[in-house]
Amino acid sequence: MRVFNTRLPVLALCAGGTGGMEAAICNIASSGDTVAVLNAGKFGERWGKVARAYGLKVVEYTKRWGESFSPEEVAEFLDHDGAEASLLVVTHSETSTGALNDLEGITRIARERGKLVIADVVTSLAVHPIEFDAWGLAAAVAGSQKGLMLPPGLALVALSEAAWDRAKRSDLPKFSYNLTLAKDSLAKNSTPFTPPVPLVLALEESLRLIEDEGLEAVFARHARHARACRNAVTGLGLELFADHPSNGLTAVRVPEDRDGAEVVAHLRERHAMRIAGGQAPMAGRLFRLGHMGHYRDGDIRDLLAALDEVLLELAWVDHSKTREIVEAALGPAGS
Amino acid sequence: MRVFNTRLPVLALCAGGTGGMEAAICNIASSGDTVAVLNAGKFGERWGKVARAYGLKVVEYTKRWGESFSPEEVAEFLDHDGAEASLLVVTHSETSTGALNDLEGITRIARERGKLVIADVVTSLAVHPIEFDAWGLAAAVAGSQKGLMLPPGLALVALSEAAWDRAKRSDLPKFSYNLTLAKDSLAKNSTPFTPPVPLVLALEESLRLIEDEGLEAVFARHARHARACRNAVTGLGLELFADHPSNGLTAVRVPEDRDGAEVVAHLRERHAMRIAGGQAPMAGRLFRLGHMGHYRDGDIRDLLAALDEVLLELAWVDHSKTREIVEAALGPAGS
Repeated sequence: MRVFNTRLPVLALCAGGTGGMEAAICNIASSGDTVAVLNAGKFGERWGKVARAYGLKVVEYTKRWGESFSPEEVAEFLDHDGAEASLLVVTHSETSTGALNDLEGITRIARERGKLVIADVVTSLAVHPIEFDAWGLAAAVAGSQKGLMLPPGLALVALSEAAWDRAKRSDLPKFSYNLTLAKDSLAKNSTPFTPPVPLVLALEESLRLIEDEGLEAVFARHARHARACRNAVTGLGLELFADHPSNGLTAVRVPEDRDGAEVVAHLRERHAMRIAGGQAPMAGRLFRLGHMGHYRDGDIRDLLAALDEVLLELAWVDHSKTREIVEAALGPAGS
Repeated sequence: MRVFNTRLPVLALCAGGTGGMEAAICNIASSGDTVAVLNAGKFGERWGKVARAYGLKVVEYTKRWGESFSPEEVAEFLDHDGAEASLLVVTHSETSTGALNDLEGITRIARERGKLVIADVVTSLAVHPIEFDAWGLAAAVAGSQKGLMLPPGLALVALSEAAWDRAKRSDLPKFSYNLTLAKDSLAKNSTPFTPPVPLVLALEESLRLIEDEGLEAVFARHARHARACRNAVTGLGLELFADHPSNGLTAVRVPEDRDGAEVVAHLRERHAMRIAGGQAPMAGRLFRLGHMGHYRDGDIRDLLAALDEVLLELAWVDHSKTREIVEAALGPAGS
C-alpha cells in the first residue's frame, strides 16, 4: 500500500485505532516478552496499558507531555532500562500533544540494537512520509478517521516479515484481531469475518483521492497548513504545546490563568467549528487544531480567522496580525 | 434497551458480531473455566473457536447443520458432558442454517442447573422476541447489520448482574473489548475509545424506526415474510434446510444433483438481487433468503417472483404456484 510504502499486505480490521494497537501487540508479542514504550502523551500511555492488559512486562521511557524523543535519547534508554525489551513502540505523531517523533531515526537506532519497532501512525499516515519497508518497521498501525479522511471504524495494520515470523510463535489470545487469519483471507480477496463494508468501499475512494492529488502534494499541503496554524498561533502571542510539532495537528498551550475549554466552546457555538481540548490530565491546559485529511486552504483560513475572532472576544489577546500571517503562509485569499 | 428487554446497560463496541462474541467470552469467563456450546452450524462452531482461542475448555453438543436443540436435549447434555461447564452458549438463530433455537426454554433448564447463558442474538434481535431480563440471560450479543438495519461495524452486548460479577473476577486479556471500561464510560455518556460515530448516530435512528413501527408489529412482519418464503419454497417442491426455521432468514436445501451457487448467481446477474449461498462445509448445498431488518411486503414479493423465475429457467422446477402462495401469505399485490 502506497501510503505505508510497503510491498507487504496491509490488513484492515473492524476496529478503531485502539483495536489496531491491540492487534499489533497480541499478534507480535508472546507471554514473557518485554515491551519498551515511549510515553509522552495519552497514546504513548495507552500502548503501555494495552501491553500490560496482555500480561506483558512494560518498560516505559516517560517524558513530559508535549516533548519528543530524540534517537540519541532512545538509544540511551534502550542501552539501559529498555535493554531486555525485544519490541519498541513509538508513537509517530502523538495526537494528545501534537508532538512528532523522528520515526526513521528512532527505528534505525532500535534496529541496531536488535529491537522490532511497532509504530503508531494513527495521525501521521498520509500526513508525514512513512517508509515502512525502507525504514525497516516491524509494524505500523493506523485508523480510518485521520489522514485517510473516513469515519472511524477501520484499523489498518502492516507487519514486516520479521513480525509475521513472531506472529507464528505468538501465544497471546486473539480471535477477531488474529492477523494471520486476516492475511490468509486477504490472499483470497476476503476477510475472516464480516468487515465494515461501507468503510472498506470508502477506503478505496480515499486512497484514489490521495493518489490523484499525489502523495507528495498531500504531504506538502499538510506542511503548509501546519505552518499557517503555527505561525498564526505564535503571532497571537500563544505558545505551541509541542517542541517538535506534527503536521497533523497543532496543539496550543493555554496560558496559566485561562481555560482552553472556553475556546473550544466559543468556536463550536459561534462558528460551528469543532476543535479538540486537552485530554486528561491536560484538560483545559491546551487546545488542538486538527488539520489532517480532507482540508483545503480555505478551511484553514476560515478556522484561523474564527480562532482569531474568538481569542480577541475572550480577551486572550489584544492585537492580531493573523490575516497577514495566514496570507504569508497560504497566499492571499481567493488566490 | 427495548429490543433486548433489559433495564441494564447495553454496550456498543467498535466491532463486528464476532468481536461482540469475543467480548462476551473474554469478559465473563476466566482461565480454567469450561464453556458448553451448542453447535449445529457455522456460528455455533465459531463460539467454540472463540472460547478455545482464550484457552478455555470447550464441551460441544454437536448436531447436524439445520437441526435445532430442544430444552430436553440440552438438559440431558448439561447433566452429562456439559456438567462441569459454568457457561452455556446458545445461538438463538443460526445464520448459517436458518435454524431457530428455543432460547427461553433452553435458558430455563440451563439456569435450573446453575449455568449462565450467553445468547448469540445476531440474527434474532428485533426479529424474534427476546426477554433478556425476564428469561434470565447472562449475556446477549448482536451486530448492527441484521435486524437493526445498519451497516456492519457495531456490536451490541448486554450483560446481567451475575455476568458483571464474573467480569470483575475475569482474568482473560482484553483491552478494546473491555466491557467494564465501556460500562463506566457509558455512565458518563461516553466511550473509552473512538466509536464508529456514523453507526452510533444511525443506531439511534433505526431504534426510532423500530419504535415507530412498534416492536410487536416488527415481529409480526418478520413472521409474515418468513411464512411467505417458506410456503413459496415448499410450494415449488423444495425443502427447507432447518427443522425449526428462524424468521430472520429462510435456508433452502439444494437437491442432490444441483448446485445452489447457480441460483445465487442468476438472481444477482439477472435480477440484481443478492441472496446468500451455503457457508463451508455447506457451500452449494443450500441457499439462504434473508428477510430480517428493513424489508417491506413488496420486497418479499419481488424476491419470490424472481426466485420462481430463476428456478423455472434453471429447470429446477417445472411448475409454479408461487404467485398464489405469496398472495395467500401477504395478500394481493398492491393491497
